[in-house]
Amino acid sequence: MKEKPISSLCTPALVVDVDKVKRNALRMIERCGSRRCIVVSTLAEACFYADHGFDDILYAYSLPLDKVERCADLSERLDLFQILLDHPHALDELKKRPLRDGRLWHVWLKLDCGNGRAGVLHSQPEAISLAQAIVGTKGVELTGVYVHCGNSYNCRGVEQIQAVAQETTDLTLQFMEKLKASGITCKSSIGSTPSCSHPVKDMGKLSEVHPGNYGFYDVQQSVIGSCTLEEVAVKVLTRVIGHCPHRNQLLIDCGWCGLSLDGAGKLPTGYAVIEGHPDLKLLSMTQEHGRVEPISGPLDYSKFPLGSLLTLIPYHSCATAVMHPVYHVHSEGRLLGKWIPTRGW
Amino acid sequence: MKEKPISSLCTPALVVDVDKVKRNALRMIERCGSRRCIVVSTLAEACFYADHGFDDILYAYSLPLDKVERCADLSERLDLFQILLDHPHALDELKKRPLRDGRLWHVWLKLDCGNGRAGVLHSQPEAISLAQAIVGTKGVELTGVYVHCGNSYNCRGVEQIQAVAQETTDLTLQFMEKLKASGITCKSSIGSTPSCSHPVKDMGKLSEVHPGNYGFYDVQQSVIGSCTLEEVAVKVLTRVIGHCPHRNQLLIDCGWCGLSLDGAGKLPTGYAVIEGHPDLKLLSMTQEHGRVEPISGPLDYSKFPLGSLLTLIPYHSCATAVMHPVYHVHSEGRLLGKWIPTRGW
Repeated sequence: MKEKPISSLCTPALVVDVDKVKRNALRMIERCGSRRCIVVSTLAEACFYADHGFDDILYAYSLPLDKVERCADLSERLDLFQILLDHPHALDELKKRPLRDGRLWHVWLKLDCGNGRAGVLHSQPEAISLAQAIVGTKGVELTGVYVHCGNSYNCRGVEQIQAVAQETTDLTLQFMEKLKASGITCKSSIGSTPSCSHPVKDMGKLSEVHPGNYGFYDVQQSVIGSCTLEEVAVKVLTRVIGHCPHRNQLLIDCGWCGLSLDGAGKLPTGYAVIEGHPDLKLLSMTQEHGRVEPISGPLDYSKFPLGSLLTLIPYHSCATAVMHPVYHVHSEGRLLGKWIPTRGW
Repeated sequence: MKEKPISSLCTPALVVDVDKVKRNALRMIERCGSRRCIVVSTLAEACFYADHGFDDILYAYSLPLDKVERCADLSERLDLFQILLDHPHALDELKKRPLRDGRLWHVWLKLDCGNGRAGVLHSQPEAISLAQAIVGTKGVELTGVYVHCGNSYNCRGVEQIQAVAQETTDLTLQFMEKLKASGITCKSSIGSTPSCSHPVKDMGKLSEVHPGNYGFYDVQQSVIGSCTLEEVAVKVLTRVIGHCPHRNQLLIDCGWCGLSLDGAGKLPTGYAVIEGHPDLKLLSMTQEHGRVEPISGPLDYSKFPLGSLLTLIPYHSCATAVMHPVYHVHSEGRLLGKWIPTRGW
């Protein structure tokens, strides 16, 4: 039996083009020359992958003190469960919970090289002293130095992306030199979707990279310059559910519950790009409704009868995917199956 | 055994104060003098309630043409499954799908009395002609006229809320008179969280009201004037996971994945109110991180050690609740159980 077309789905529906995901992933594998190890951002994801046979997982999130016991469980269960910290108090908590059977806590030091989120600032003396404290703690191993160059999200175009990638690489390698001078050697690593989509040569001197959301991509990444719009692998299908000629608008059945509010004010086409309709704008959303209007001129309602399908390319696919309890996977528009994402923390 | 305190939860965690929910619900029941009938905004919710014994459900969403068959199933299964429409093409679809056993489609006409989302505009002749077309269609019953006064969300204070409630009630009752003059009688109904929290006397002349999010409430509703901040029944627990003295900021483990981006730019305290800390602002969020800073002055880090708990009162609890696969229900801070929300469409 022929697989059903994606147009048979009730909407709103998140659809994943598995061919594009594969192409995006293959290109990243070629770029990095490795396919071992995974990085997750929630412990719920770490548990999901651990339950499905992965035994080398980095939980890339400054160790939350309410989750030390769950991290200890995974450390005692997996071949290589790795955590990350940026504060001496987190190290104190590890001391209080030695692992069984002589196992070591595998710890990455989180360093901030200009992103301004988590991490010890690279230029502060506390960064070196925390690395020394980790090395000096029984039962704990300093596995590496971890940097997220999320400041590359402010870039426009390859040149700017590579400038951030170069600066982050330089600062990280300088920090590694300082560590070496104090007798410490360990791995080094940077990552973000833009920098790993356009890596600079010196990134080859790092032990690892963390390539971010290269599998799905989105409009934001196409604006930054990480990908083309054609490489975006996830879209949201939606249908016209109302005509509002007195406001020159259409209503669609995708509100923020199906798309998220990410990207407000960022695009001339509103909260998303409407595939094949560069003249339309997703103006606003409530929970289950979206308002669509022409960027200029009157709307030709005969082109958009009730029930007609529109395809939204999300501004930020991480934020959009989180809204969907099911991902509908297709190849060339034919449904192959469903993916159920892991939620929670 | 004593129930565990909510502080034992891993964070971020959505906690529901069941006593407040009961008080909010009781007050609404007293106000409305009825406890029959429920209104849902997705078909997934309708199916959930139908599967759990509810037999009088209004699916308050302009009939989506991809869901006619699922609506027909519910109409044939339940005592009183009710739908809503605002376009003659939706009526055409009902004609194509007559219900079995002589059952009728129970249809509400969706009217727009100034909200500017779904509905036929009350002043347009199409509104009366669509009502007449529904009445004239075999197998279809015009159950009522449905109005959502979501424009009350722009109000500040009881006086403004009641002005919108009064205007919406007047326009709805005038429309009912016009219908009556053309020989049509049916139910009438308006609703929104603000208008039903401060109803005007004339709303007693309507058949029904749809009171919105009175069970949970949120900061937005307290700003509008629907409730006090103390009546808000849902909060998000979060913990401090980072100190950033070089930026005078804290990091917390709640990003937009645990709170949503709703409310951007609306509050002096940022994306939420931090309970007990009116001097703090939730400045920005990424997927799993929130940045908190003082509204003015330097941060006293000794008051916020790593792992310390903060409580976020959400700006829009509908948007926040959607982000959580589990609601943790408590009474006076003691955990009673979990609620698993119905997701999808």
